[in-house]
Amino acid sequence: MKSILEYETVDYDRENHALVIIDQTKLPNDIVLLSLTAAQDIWDAIYLLKVRGAPAIGVAAAFGLAALAHRITAQDKAAFLEELAEKKEFLNSARPTAVNLSWALKRMMDVCHKNPEAPVAVLKGLLLEEAFLMKQEDIAVCRKIGEYGLDVLKDGDGILTHCNAGQLATCKYGTATASIYIGQERGYHFRVYADETRPLLQGARLTAFELYSAGIDVTLLCDNMSASLMQQGLIQAVLVGCDRVAANGDTANKIGTSVVAAVAHYYKVPFYVCAPTSTIDFHTPTGKEIVIEQRDAAEVSEMWYQKPMTVKGVRIYNPAFDVTDHSLITGFITERGIVKSPVDLRNC
Amino acid sequence: MKSILEYETVDYDRENHALVIIDQTKLPNDIVLLSLTAAQDIWDAIYLLKVRGAPAIGVAAAFGLAALAHRITAQDKAAFLEELAEKKEFLNSARPTAVNLSWALKRMMDVCHKNPEAPVAVLKGLLLEEAFLMKQEDIAVCRKIGEYGLDVLKDGDGILTHCNAGQLATCKYGTATASIYIGQERGYHFRVYADETRPLLQGARLTAFELYSAGIDVTLLCDNMSASLMQQGLIQAVLVGCDRVAANGDTANKIGTSVVAAVAHYYKVPFYVCAPTSTIDFHTPTGKEIVIEQRDAAEVSEMWYQKPMTVKGVRIYNPAFDVTDHSLITGFITERGIVKSPVDLRNC
Repeated sequence: MKSILEYETVDYDRENHALVIIDQTKLPNDIVLLSLTAAQDIWDAIYLLKVRGAPAIGVAAAFGLAALAHRITAQDKAAFLEELAEKKEFLNSARPTAVNLSWALKRMMDVCHKNPEAPVAVLKGLLLEEAFLMKQEDIAVCRKIGEYGLDVLKDGDGILTHCNAGQLATCKYGTATASIYIGQERGYHFRVYADETRPLLQGARLTAFELYSAGIDVTLLCDNMSASLMQQGLIQAVLVGCDRVAANGDTANKIGTSVVAAVAHYYKVPFYVCAPTSTIDFHTPTGKEIVIEQRDAAEVSEMWYQKPMTVKGVRIYNPAFDVTDHSLITGFITERGIVKSPVDLRNC
Repeated sequence: MKSILEYETVDYDRENHALVIIDQTKLPNDIVLLSLTAAQDIWDAIYLLKVRGAPAIGVAAAFGLAALAHRITAQDKAAFLEELAEKKEFLNSARPTAVNLSWALKRMMDVCHKNPEAPVAVLKGLLLEEAFLMKQEDIAVCRKIGEYGLDVLKDGDGILTHCNAGQLATCKYGTATASIYIGQERGYHFRVYADETRPLLQGARLTAFELYSAGIDVTLLCDNMSASLMQQGLIQAVLVGCDRVAANGDTANKIGTSVVAAVAHYYKVPFYVCAPTSTIDFHTPTGKEIVIEQRDAAEVSEMWYQKPMTVKGVRIYNPAFDVTDHSLITGFITERGIVKSPVDLRNC
């Protein structure tokens, strides 16, 4: 059987002009590829987390917009651009927190602005090539993050990660997992600990799955067990991904990240955010301005379970993300180097 | 339909000489009463968490031993005591961490030592009365804890709790929930936040259930969401129970408690351990000497789920408890008052 790592997280079918993704809600039990060509289906795939992870969402939205552009029948340039802008706004509304969604879609629209003379048919081709370029860039960025990350790790280290910032969240390598995969190439043995990440269990279903499939030493734990590991000295570093980094370094990432950060702070374990620079949003001054997506209560009370796991009617708090204060972050591992704060990138 | 709060968490059927408990693994969907008379069934009920919560385990073990004593056929006193000691050791082996199990069983055996002249039939009666006395004491202790707890709370406070240290963990009132119930009697309105408490979801299945049934304002959250609430200033105090408090104040409680404590420490939220003095073990100097029960991996990977929630073969870490360092604990709310450290109880 083909390993999960041999599948492309996000791809494009040039023959049928379709966005192709692995349906991540079915993992680890079933590997199902989805071929999407309709705006509502692409929106649903992002909203329902069939594709998730900030970098993967960005590339999926780019391929998705390319597929939708291909189907716009208007030959008139102005009409084409108007319809494309509508599709872009629609896809952009699927999830508010990760900056990569709006970043990638804006970059696609910029292709149109940079090629004002191009006829519609040519623009459609340019849009698709831009999306492929973004995919290639994502792979290169993740690899660089992995290489820089190895500078702060040593063979034998215990690494804790939260949610899935792995290959399944990107086009290859992952962000938080990149150092683990590249370390493996170089013969390092890391002990990796994966938080299961309630409510949607991305750590159990995705991170433990992909690392185990790669032959990496991985142990799964519930989100409330990190302090127990750190007390025993088993964790030398925490590596997490991010959905949006504010200019001051406050970082939105999967709910629970700031819990791990506070625990690591108490136990004096270095806490690194693995951040493609595309995830850094200098237009957002601090974490207070980041919109946090609130999701359906049933994700907590019912999803994955055979029976309701609490009493009907009880109120449920279910934010998809939280903001980790910059004071808790040891450093940002980016494709341009490791920095203490986003502003330091000016010197990289 | 009868409210869950109208059932006795732990009781004794005098007619059939049986320990009677609510099967807590079936909550909140089904309320099933179990009537137990065999040693293996009582051991299983404790090991499988059909009855759980340190105070409830203590009283259940006492009633359980009384039921087993009733069935010992030996008329010879020495033979009776030998068999009773065997049953006691067997029940004591069900779970290692909560001190109340061994404390309660030792107290039952002390009844025999204090009544050396009593014939077997009389002893059986004395054992049962001791178990009933322990139940009454547990109710009184919890009520006092609730009254003292109100000294550090004010109307309108947001209270976070972890796992279930509620009525279902005791004979009435709970420990961490006692102030909430007694506050309700006095017209206070608390906003209570209940961690769901993976892997066995005692917070979702039990705490949210019992508080909601009592008409208390309760919101359920995943274990990784506490920092998100504290960032928003929604939590004024954390109240948790405990399974064993070492002489220096290090506290073993449900896995995840020390995560909440570290997060509360960072956000400067007071963190109180609600502790019947029976849970304080002066024979254990620090948390390092507390044995932490490790449980089955399937509780994390499969229990409650329709399908396996991670890949087969992956290693899983599943300790039932962790130890919260005494430096993270604002105070211990006991039936004898609120103290900074167990040693201060000498002055209460």
